[in-house]
Amino acid sequence: MSLLKFKRLPKHIGIIPDGNRRWAQSKGFAKEAGYEFGLEPGLQLYDLCVKLGVKELTFYGFTQDNTKRPSAQRKAFQKACTDAVKMLSQKDASLLVIGNAASPLFPPELKVYTKRQVFGKDLIKINFLVNYGWKWDLYSALQTSSFNQTNPVKAIASSEVSRIDLIIRWGGRRRLSGFLPIQSIYSDFYIVEDMWPDFKPDHFYEALAWYDCQDTTLGG
Amino acid sequence: MSLLKFKRLPKHIGIIPDGNRRWAQSKGFAKEAGYEFGLEPGLQLYDLCVKLGVKELTFYGFTQDNTKRPSAQRKAFQKACTDAVKMLSQKDASLLVIGNAASPLFPPELKVYTKRQVFGKDLIKINFLVNYGWKWDLYSALQTSSFNQTNPVKAIASSEVSRIDLIIRWGGRRRLSGFLPIQSIYSDFYIVEDMWPDFKPDHFYEALAWYDCQDTTLGG
Repeated sequence: MSLLKFKRLPKHIGIIPDGNRRWAQSKGFAKEAGYEFGLEPGLQLYDLCVKLGVKELTFYGFTQDNTKRPSAQRKAFQKACTDAVKMLSQKDASLLVIGNAASPLFPPELKVYTKRQVFGKDLIKINFLVNYGWKWDLYSALQTSSFNQTNPVKAIASSEVSRIDLIIRWGGRRRLSGFLPIQSIYSDFYIVEDMWPDFKPDHFYEALAWYDCQDTTLGG
Repeated sequence: MSLLKFKRLPKHIGIIPDGNRRWAQSKGFAKEAGYEFGLEPGLQLYDLCVKLGVKELTFYGFTQDNTKRPSAQRKAFQKACTDAVKMLSQKDASLLVIGNAASPLFPPELKVYTKRQVFGKDLIKINFLVNYGWKWDLYSALQTSSFNQTNPVKAIASSEVSRIDLIIRWGGRRRLSGFLPIQSIYSDFYIVEDMWPDFKPDHFYEALAWYDCQDTTLGG
């Protein structure tokens, strides 16, 4: 599969890495133990995207909705997201963390990344959603004094994130769960039944092979 | 299949009736001939929803994006949507048409439905998107003088449409194509490979059987 050439490579891929807790339970671990097993898959995905020439990659880290979970889980996903961003900062990428950084639920160590930071050879643009909320994102557009009514979309908090061509969700659920509603408006969705910690490169290649057979109409 | 009982019946179902043009071509017709074959499936779906007790049903009629198509197609889908709304007005339902009615692309006969009209025994709430655009929808929130910053979502043009539990799309594409981005944020998606004019009740029952096995987390 990995030798396939794609006619239509998505420029921007969104990743919803779901199923960490269900994976942990299936292994007899506590639910919160699953998140750290999601780090290695993220790095593998980074490598595959760079190898193929994908320009932009957005990871759904954690959301304001997620922070209502028990504190052991919250701490575990806060730590996993912090570790993931640090690991990616050792790679060749420009990194932007997007989320409500004014909240105590936002990991302080990640504040520096709320402005895009460039690392190494800057081979790919990576966006990482941390304490992200769709309401927070959209409502920002309404509180901007430089607000331009002809294009409010340029005023949302995630305005630096481009339109997403392909969203891949692990863990079998077929829903967006609040993931970047504006950038997802015309995205194609691909669902992987396996849980995110069970990531295999073939999941990714299968998603790309499926995307290769779609068309892009932007609603037209 | 039709005798199944569902533990979790969606309160609100969104319908993306795609594939009319591909269906027409596969039959050797001109593309625009497909739309009128989508009317009867819509009525069947109305009957099934009433029978099962679904409270709200939203049809994706046509969008501002769609109006960029050749005029023969545009006229055909404008007519099909007008006919569909009129046919539904003969049933027991309350009907609301949502879209930019200020545009010449909006069928004049449907203007009366831009305020909800109640017909017969009012057994179900039906929303029908006509000349709808996601930007038009969201930007309305920004032009409202009574705008309340704590809940801008209440100010969008489609604010009378509730959160959608289940979106069913015919025609195999796995994307929203601009369909109600706010109400779709937590929706489950079900894709039917067959084209909309090939609608069968079993498509609908299979979608409900699938939905029955999902959970509702609202991102939590």
